[in-house]
Amino acid sequence: MSFHASVLTLYPDMFPGTLDQSLAGRALENGVWKLDVTQIRDFASGKHKNVDDTPAGGGAGMVLRADVLGRAIDAVSPADDPRPRLLMSPRGKPLDQERVRALTDGPGVVIVCGRFEGVDQRVIDQRQLEEVSIGDYILSGGEVAAQVVLDAIIRLLPGVMGNDTSGESESFETGLLEHPHYTRPAEWEGHSIPDVLVSGNHGKIEQWRRDQAEKLTKQRRPDLIAALDKKKQS
Amino acid sequence: MSFHASVLTLYPDMFPGTLDQSLAGRALENGVWKLDVTQIRDFASGKHKNVDDTPAGGGAGMVLRADVLGRAIDAVSPADDPRPRLLMSPRGKPLDQERVRALTDGPGVVIVCGRFEGVDQRVIDQRQLEEVSIGDYILSGGEVAAQVVLDAIIRLLPGVMGNDTSGESESFETGLLEHPHYTRPAEWEGHSIPDVLVSGNHGKIEQWRRDQAEKLTKQRRPDLIAALDKKKQS
Repeated sequence: MSFHASVLTLYPDMFPGTLDQSLAGRALENGVWKLDVTQIRDFASGKHKNVDDTPAGGGAGMVLRADVLGRAIDAVSPADDPRPRLLMSPRGKPLDQERVRALTDGPGVVIVCGRFEGVDQRVIDQRQLEEVSIGDYILSGGEVAAQVVLDAIIRLLPGVMGNDTSGESESFETGLLEHPHYTRPAEWEGHSIPDVLVSGNHGKIEQWRRDQAEKLTKQRRPDLIAALDKKKQS
Repeated sequence: MSFHASVLTLYPDMFPGTLDQSLAGRALENGVWKLDVTQIRDFASGKHKNVDDTPAGGGAGMVLRADVLGRAIDAVSPADDPRPRLLMSPRGKPLDQERVRALTDGPGVVIVCGRFEGVDQRVIDQRQLEEVSIGDYILSGGEVAAQVVLDAIIRLLPGVMGNDTSGESESFETGLLEHPHYTRPAEWEGHSIPDVLVSGNHGKIEQWRRDQAEKLTKQRRPDLIAALDKKKQS
């Protein structure tokens, strides 16, 4: 059974976007995952097909209406849909690799792409939308964020990376950032590959990589070191 | 002078991707920003036009070659290019709204999209690539991450959001997550908009929004509250 992604958006033409090529594109072609994209505007009523309105209490921007989005969600994801419903939003819980892995184990995902100033809180509550943030910055809408989530999921689906085991040693999976990489040519612009990597001594290579990963993580992401220490203690 | 983005990638067809529509698409059409996309493979040499090779010291995956990427960067961004050169990488410093604003003030940006297991460290060092991460998860490549960076930048460029002032009160700009939003209809599935928001009392509305923002941030992102406290103390 393939992983089933449903996306709700005001910009359906943005999909599949980056997901129609490379790893994700081949996996889509091979049926490892499937994608349907729903235009939220199709569920608007009235002459003007308005999907948004001014915020109650005043203020800048427009708010996506609960009734319109509610109907769109119900059409795509009925009450008994086992898939989690995500709302891409800077207010959400930050996405991490652990959450990505958990989503990968499920039957699929429903993703609502936020736009405007925000989404009416009632539809978030009543349709159990899980607000997810891909990082601490503001985007013009949730579409590119949805592609980030899907890309992160799809590469982990069975068969997508083939028998490539590179998924295991990479950043975050060990709790550390990854060590530096080198490849041919042996010398480039007067700079050589570090001696240890061409020594053939696998024990020393492993040790060097671990040391480098720790050093880099301490420099750039002391928060990850703190999280790792906490995990070890518990 | 328009903001000049140069992207280096092995998947040029992924661009402009989500950036050809909505806010970013109109701004591209209006010349607020311009985009050129360079195929890294065009700078490979030899019969097989290899861009990658096995990692020195062994291990899984492939590494993007320093010589090939170096030539591609030099063609797009000469030594005196004032634009910062970003490398999208999970090992990078996490992108935040402050960095986005700083990039917005500059002449543009050069973005290298990582692929494979990584990029030869020598080209990162010799071409002063600034490793930037959009979040703590792994993507199949840097292309969708580059679109995230560009989307976040473009919406802040002069004229793109028009006289919409909604950029100012949103998440992260105040150090807090945003308060809940509501709009018409006044009642939906038996749920009303909170009374205070329809009271017309602007002082109380402001207070309610501030309280809600604080409560939500404490619940979901105690790290942001800690950062805010630290800022206040200094």
